[in-house]
Amino acid sequence: MPPTHNTAPTQYIEANGIRYAYRRFGAGDQLPLVCLQHFRGGLDNWDRLVTDGLAQNRSVILFNNAGVASSEGDPADTIDGMARHVIAFVEALGLEKIDLFGFSMGGFVAQNVVLDRPKLVRRLILAGTGPEGGEGMVGYPELATRHATQKVPTEENFLYLFFYPTDSSQAAGRIYWTRRHEREDQDMPSSMEAMAAQVKAIAAWGAVPAHDRYAKLKKITLPVLIVNGKTDLMVPTVNSFILQQHLPDAELIIYPDSGHGGIFQFPARFVREATTFLDRGPREAL
Amino acid sequence: MPPTHNTAPTQYIEANGIRYAYRRFGAGDQLPLVCLQHFRGGLDNWDRLVTDGLAQNRSVILFNNAGVASSEGDPADTIDGMARHVIAFVEALGLEKIDLFGFSMGGFVAQNVVLDRPKLVRRLILAGTGPEGGEGMVGYPELATRHATQKVPTEENFLYLFFYPTDSSQAAGRIYWTRRHEREDQDMPSSMEAMAAQVKAIAAWGAVPAHDRYAKLKKITLPVLIVNGKTDLMVPTVNSFILQQHLPDAELIIYPDSGHGGIFQFPARFVREATTFLDRGPREAL
Repeated sequence: MPPTHNTAPTQYIEANGIRYAYRRFGAGDQLPLVCLQHFRGGLDNWDRLVTDGLAQNRSVILFNNAGVASSEGDPADTIDGMARHVIAFVEALGLEKIDLFGFSMGGFVAQNVVLDRPKLVRRLILAGTGPEGGEGMVGYPELATRHATQKVPTEENFLYLFFYPTDSSQAAGRIYWTRRHEREDQDMPSSMEAMAAQVKAIAAWGAVPAHDRYAKLKKITLPVLIVNGKTDLMVPTVNSFILQQHLPDAELIIYPDSGHGGIFQFPARFVREATTFLDRGPREAL
Repeated sequence: MPPTHNTAPTQYIEANGIRYAYRRFGAGDQLPLVCLQHFRGGLDNWDRLVTDGLAQNRSVILFNNAGVASSEGDPADTIDGMARHVIAFVEALGLEKIDLFGFSMGGFVAQNVVLDRPKLVRRLILAGTGPEGGEGMVGYPELATRHATQKVPTEENFLYLFFYPTDSSQAAGRIYWTRRHEREDQDMPSSMEAMAAQVKAIAAWGAVPAHDRYAKLKKITLPVLIVNGKTDLMVPTVNSFILQQHLPDAELIIYPDSGHGGIFQFPARFVREATTFLDRGPREAL
């Protein structure tokens, strides 16, 4: 059996004196897809239905940034610092061209990777995320903050933050929570130090700039697929629309009855849409 | 050969003393799909790649509202009046349950059909459209108005109003324009009287209400697929996002590099997405 989300070993690679943790599985003709995770998330915060689905015709690489979960080093406290770790990691793997998938804070990092190394990335998927200085991206409501900052996040925290307050979405969230714990050797949780560094990075990224809001997005000229749930409590859904409107070549899908974790609520649909986006040829093939 | 977009005869049916023109083609297990057209548009303003695609597993019904192109009667000068004509027409056909597809002004009418006859419609597709009292839906720019109100709209008018000012979108627009004229017995153009009535209806629909903006959308509880191009000059694209956010069970797709006529720029993709939406079972199958 080739390795899958649940069986691929955690591997380590060193660059810039840091030992980065990652997992790699899948194979096929398409470019490797590097996946960047959300606030505090590690290798096991992904969903095997998403990652194994995407790995049907490509290599999928899950990555822990410096100081996050099983990666060593000091956690970066800027989004740009996290992007530099991604670039160092990808270069250490010897990859010259990748597709990139950023979820939530990982989407912030992914945008900066593209800005820093435009030739490294062919296509970009952004889920549950937003632009630098977007709408309502600082000053989280107290309840959301409480759910997001527990020392060991629980199912209840994830159901609140990632799913919609309907029976159908909450039920999908519980099934996701079960899937997410199937793997036996779970990645270690991220430290409170990593959380503090990420809080600082996110606050700076979310601050509305004094001028040229969204101007950087014009420089991200590659094809981008943007996906979100209807009501995202972590990165308000309007930011997905803003990304689509300001990026030169972006398309947008918003799922019904869902929240920040829409891609974990509708994994089969997301895999179908992401695969179509990644695999297609020129625009005519849309 | 079974009838297609280009070969289905124009038929007529009488209700309320009005002789409505329509065409019907396709067959299959799914509910009939009734298609409601844009400002001034008649039976030949659809795109065979869209309509024949949708007709692969259902009956597709194209409809001219009263006084529009080959339909007789006085053109309604309210969106609600147009919705009543749709209901009379559907009842005259003996259909008890339909799926409904409204494009642009047809999307306004489709929303009112659902509000008036919630049990008549199972699923709804809204393309290039917006809610009553949406954003920037009155006071069209002078240039757009000039392109939209020519006595006989030209290819140049459609390229400006329906497609995006890039080479790729304009090229897709020219190919659409050729497809749209393939049928030999073209529907007659709509009269200037029909245009005047529709202008009045659209202006009233677009006006921002003094209170309870978007409140009616909560009553449209059926599943809705919303689709638009990136920059819609006729019904600004933000209205598609507003619809998705306020309708209880809606999903949104925004295409890249496109305008009001995004569904005519990416017909194969739209057919795939619309068919998936119309044909799927319960939410779990997403």
